Amino acid sequence: MSPIIRRLAVMTSGGDAPGMNPCIRAVVRTAIARNLEVWGVEDGYEGLINGNFIRLGARDVSGILQKGGTILRSARSEQMMQPSGQIEAVRQLNSQGIDAAVIIGGDGSLRGAKVLAERGMAVMGIPASIDNDIYGTDMCIGVDTALNTIVEAIDKIRDTASSHSRAFLVETMGRNSGYLALMAGINSGAEMVLIPEVPTTVDEIINTVKLDYQKGKQHCIIVVAEGFEPDTNELARIINEKDVGFRAWVTILGHLQRGGTPSAFDRWLATRFGVRAVEFLLDGQRGMMTALNGNRVVTVPLQEVVSQRKETPTRFYEIAEILAR
Amino acid sequence: MSPIIRRLAVMTSGGDAPGMNPCIRAVVRTAIARNLEVWGVEDGYEGLINGNFIRLGARDVSGILQKGGTILRSARSEQMMQPSGQIEAVRQLNSQGIDAAVIIGGDGSLRGAKVLAERGMAVMGIPASIDNDIYGTDMCIGVDTALNTIVEAIDKIRDTASSHSRAFLVETMGRNSGYLALMAGINSGAEMVLIPEVPTTVDEIINTVKLDYQKGKQHCIIVVAEGFEPDTNELARIINEKDVGFRAWVTILGHLQRGGTPSAFDRWLATRFGVRAVEFLLDGQRGMMTALNGNRVVTVPLQEVVSQRKETPTRFYEIAEILAR
Amino acid sequence: MSPIIRRLAVMTSGGDAPGMNPCIRAVVRTAIARNLEVWGVEDGYEGLINGNFIRLGARDVSGILQKGGTILRSARSEQMMQPSGQIEAVRQLNSQGIDAAVIIGGDGSLRGAKVLAERGMAVMGIPASIDNDIYGTDMCIGVDTALNTIVEAIDKIRDTASSHSRAFLVETMGRNSGYLALMAGINSGAEMVLIPEVPTTVDEIINTVKLDYQKGKQHCIIVVAEGFEPDTNELARIINEKDVGFRAWVTILGHLQRGGTPSAFDRWLATRFGVRAVEFLLDGQRGMMTALNGNRVVTVPLQEVVSQRKETPTRFYEIAEILAR
Amino acid sequence: MSPIIRRLAVMTSGGDAPGMNPCIRAVVRTAIARNLEVWGVEDGYEGLINGNFIRLGARDVSGILQKGGTILRSARSEQMMQPSGQIEAVRQLNSQGIDAAVIIGGDGSLRGAKVLAERGMAVMGIPASIDNDIYGTDMCIGVDTALNTIVEAIDKIRDTASSHSRAFLVETMGRNSGYLALMAGINSGAEMVLIPEVPTTVDEIINTVKLDYQKGKQHCIIVVAEGFEPDTNELARIINEKDVGFRAWVTILGHLQRGGTPSAFDRWLATRFGVRAVEFLLDGQRGMMTALNGNRVVTVPLQEVVSQRKETPTRFYEIAEILAR
Repeated sequence: MSPIIRRLAVMTSGGDAPGMNPCIRAVVRTAIARNLEVWGVEDGYEGLINGNFIRLGARDVSGILQKGGTILRSARSEQMMQPSGQIEAVRQLNSQGIDAAVIIGGDGSLRGAKVLAERGMAVMGIPASIDNDIYGTDMCIGVDTALNTIVEAIDKIRDTASSHSRAFLVETMGRNSGYLALMAGINSGAEMVLIPEVPTTVDEIINTVKLDYQKGKQHCIIVVAEGFEPDTNELARIINEKDVGFRAWVTILGHLQRGGTPSAFDRWLATRFGVRAVEFLLDGQRGMMTALNGNRVVTVPLQEVVSQRKETPTRFYEIAEILAR
Repeated sequence: MSPIIRRLAVMTSGGDAPGMNPCIRAVVRTAIARNLEVWGVEDGYEGLINGNFIRLGARDVSGILQKGGTILRSARSEQMMQPSGQIEAVRQLNSQGIDAAVIIGGDGSLRGAKVLAERGMAVMGIPASIDNDIYGTDMCIGVDTALNTIVEAIDKIRDTASSHSRAFLVETMGRNSGYLALMAGINSGAEMVLIPEVPTTVDEIINTVKLDYQKGKQHCIIVVAEGFEPDTNELARIINEKDVGFRAWVTILGHLQRGGTPSAFDRWLATRFGVRAVEFLLDGQRGMMTALNGNRVVTVPLQEVVSQRKETPTRFYEIAEILAR
Repeated sequence: MSPIIRRLAVMTSGGDAPGMNPCIRAVVRTAIARNLEVWGVEDGYEGLINGNFIRLGARDVSGILQKGGTILRSARSEQMMQPSGQIEAVRQLNSQGIDAAVIIGGDGSLRGAKVLAERGMAVMGIPASIDNDIYGTDMCIGVDTALNTIVEAIDKIRDTASSHSRAFLVETMGRNSGYLALMAGINSGAEMVLIPEVPTTVDEIINTVKLDYQKGKQHCIIVVAEGFEPDTNELARIINEKDVGFRAWVTILGHLQRGGTPSAFDRWLATRFGVRAVEFLLDGQRGMMTALNGNRVVTVPLQEVVSQRKETPTRFYEIAEILAR
Repeated sequence: MSPIIRRLAVMTSGGDAPGMNPCIRAVVRTAIARNLEVWGVEDGYEGLINGNFIRLGARDVSGILQKGGTILRSARSEQMMQPSGQIEAVRQLNSQGIDAAVIIGGDGSLRGAKVLAERGMAVMGIPASIDNDIYGTDMCIGVDTALNTIVEAIDKIRDTASSHSRAFLVETMGRNSGYLALMAGINSGAEMVLIPEVPTTVDEIINTVKLDYQKGKQHCIIVVAEGFEPDTNELARIINEKDVGFRAWVTILGHLQRGGTPSAFDRWLATRFGVRAVEFLLDGQRGMMTALNGNRVVTVPLQEVVSQRKETPTRFYEIAEILAR
């Protein structure tokens, strides 16, 4: 039987994602409504190892629902990858009298959560990653906001694209996952999407651009995932060198995609994950991650989450191609 | 066996919803990719009865992905409620040589679609309604955009709410359904949500406002569904008469909620529904509606859709209350 | 000769306006760069009379540039209208050792500033009012943001307006001034603008709507200033009663117009006013208000500001009419 | 005495700017109200030389007020730089029976306008350029929208910046002019602004970043004008190599800055310029450009416009530094 939880810690870790704040708010207020005492850990695992705990009351999370970023800040931690750091992390939680921890973050953060669980801590992970690259959940916190940011950016670029005859290369985040680029490409009507998961040669790219020009298209918008090779700047150079009709221009969205006020969807997903994470812990679940499965919030073992790879739904690539005509 | 489809009609009907345009685009381009000829019907059933058909090619739906409203326009039709109008609608489709029709709209539109199906037309309905009040699908086209519009509006009102001590009544659409108001309330951190589905007396409302004032809250934001009684203006009058500490101010969002460029989610939902509607028809399905079931696009019989009532998830009301503390 | 200023107070008062925060930030950081000590007064004149002073350092105004509302909060004060309240306000400033005060606000706030100046306090006013109704300055802080908010709202309403045949009445702020309504009407291409300054009979309104309908216009958007009579709800009722072709729907923007992140223009205006207010005080100017005159920031005596009425540029009414055709 | 104008041409040329559409609308509707016949020239000077004229009625410019880009499209033209092209341009205007032309665009476009004027055409230029780099006018069409786009982007980057310890390099347009970068930097509270007009060595940059890190700043946002050297990618490389505490990340906004729905300010400026351009021509003015001078719309000779260089207001650089503390 699970021991009673009286003190709950909550932290955000890794790359931040819009919606982390509504998630913190939901964890804190649900826990307080269940008579728990809540402590925030600042600066992710780095802060955990250094013992950066702050007490969080219901009012401390007022007015954060609409804020991008995370009020607990976040950081990547080298130490947490070493056993010595992991031991120190557990020690800090114990010395603070923490009975359970909710850890909000991406792949690396959930690996850390799994380690803490293996070392005996009552842990619940919550997936937050704009790349939607976490196994076991349909959606991660932050994806919807990032996607809207990218789509709005491409809408603006299209305004000017229609005024000239140009090719626009728009680089989105996604070092290993083409999810954002693919979805942004479909939802903004891009002429081409280049992602690491779908091999495309430079010749194929050049030919598509050339063909679009010959068809009399006003513009050619190409969404490129960060992890595609050759990279965006190099692709632009090649297109311009080949003289295909359109001249290529580059936009690199960068961290712009991580910010912004969370969308309604992300607030709701973050809120549900936060509420349920506390409830699952109180129900005795351990070493799990909250996950969206269709409409329902379920749990998936962290062990399973970190040992498998989420596939990008490349079947949608075909839709992108049909609709771009 | 279903007869072969060569000519497809597509129309939008009833109250418009952001995402109707991406849906039209997906229907048209998918149908063309499948070698169908596509005709648009303008002005909904009214236009259908009057024979307002226009030929749609792939280029005719260029650049509409990001546009609110519907390029085919929409209208409510009295005639379509009479057998004579319904017979004329079928006659028009037949005389135009249309083999199948995709009808995008809300409850009334789908009732019309059901009638056409009963009269022998090969019909596929697609649910579009910002109220999310259509039975059989998790989400309708337009809900996500409308929700984001409301939440952004409340975020702005909160800016000024924090600067004064005021109560703000924000009226959302929803004559019969409190879905939008409830979700907007939760996702904007409103202090209270008033919807037709959850009976709340004026005394309870007054007491909550009074209590919030006494607790020292800076403001009190109340989201009111259009269908709640007493209505928003009346509620404001009562609050101000009772002198509860906060003074009440009214915002009525009105048709602002129907407009705006569709969100990424709505573009994607609309696109999937549009693509699948054509495919389902080609696979021989008749008299159905596309529906989102978790992650998957499925079909539900129109007969079932129009004979049942979608419940507002009032269980989330409790979350709203816990998180508003 | 002016005595040396060592301690500066800054406050916001009256209805809040987007840009008040960047203005506070500019006052604080400029003053600190000039080696002054800065105190904020919370809750406007009410707070001043109650002695709500807080010390402000450079870091206290970090991250407020993009925030709507005012971190010092604001309030309307009955007491400040009485000599007893005014005397107490001066006493509080003196007892806190304040040598000069920057007061950011609208008409009422500047009247209060004038009174403090007459009672011997070194005061500099800064005009902030979304109505742009303050004499002596081309623009007030907040106008540009409010205008963008209204125009974006009408853009969204137009999306849906084009899909049906409807008249939309959009009520903007402006109890005494039609500035916002007029400018919003021109910049959103509204079919009609109704403001207190330009008398329009109900018959004229009805005729215009009827004519637009007969001309085959898809929609008719009417922007109504809060102070126009009959009021918006009443106008909608009359239009619907008269059965003019279009059916009328109402949007009341309300306090939505006061919120939102300040636009680039408002940040810049607020910053310039804040920087210059401190410099003008240090240069020995007293009892003045910062004002935008073309491109330049100048000063105008508060006495002049409060004794004259800013005219709404009704000559632009003609432009609205020509361009709406 | 000027000959009577009966046929007016309007065109957009060069890099597009948000607000060109409202400007076209104002020209067309004002001209029609004055009983002129209006012809649009498509694709800028390239189209002019090729005789791409289209008749424009009042309805042809409906619904374009809120659209980015230009419905007349734009292009850069090599031919227009040669006497042969210029002669052909005039010949086309004459053969179409055009009496006067309104030319909306940036520096190169106005040079072309000057040439046409010298060759006898009645021409009025309208300055549109997001860089605000045109001599003789306080503001160009498009600047305000572009500035808001950049500021919103930096606001989003700041969300995530506060969650980590990072330096963010944000590249804005401005090959020769630092106006956009400077104004965006001030209005977004950037820690540093790098523009061609203000020489800054790599060592100074590195030291500032290092100092900010040592001061305990959460982040360091650096706005870099396109024309600054070394360029943004190179700067990021150097910062990361030097290991100054913050790690540098790059965002290149690119053509995103040219798009977007025009702000209220740009719609108004474009509308005023458009209305007045027609009126000035009818009043007999020739070879001039409309210009904003404080609050007033005046004219400046094209000869003067193209022979002088607009200075970036580098005196504001100091404000940027004071306020960034």
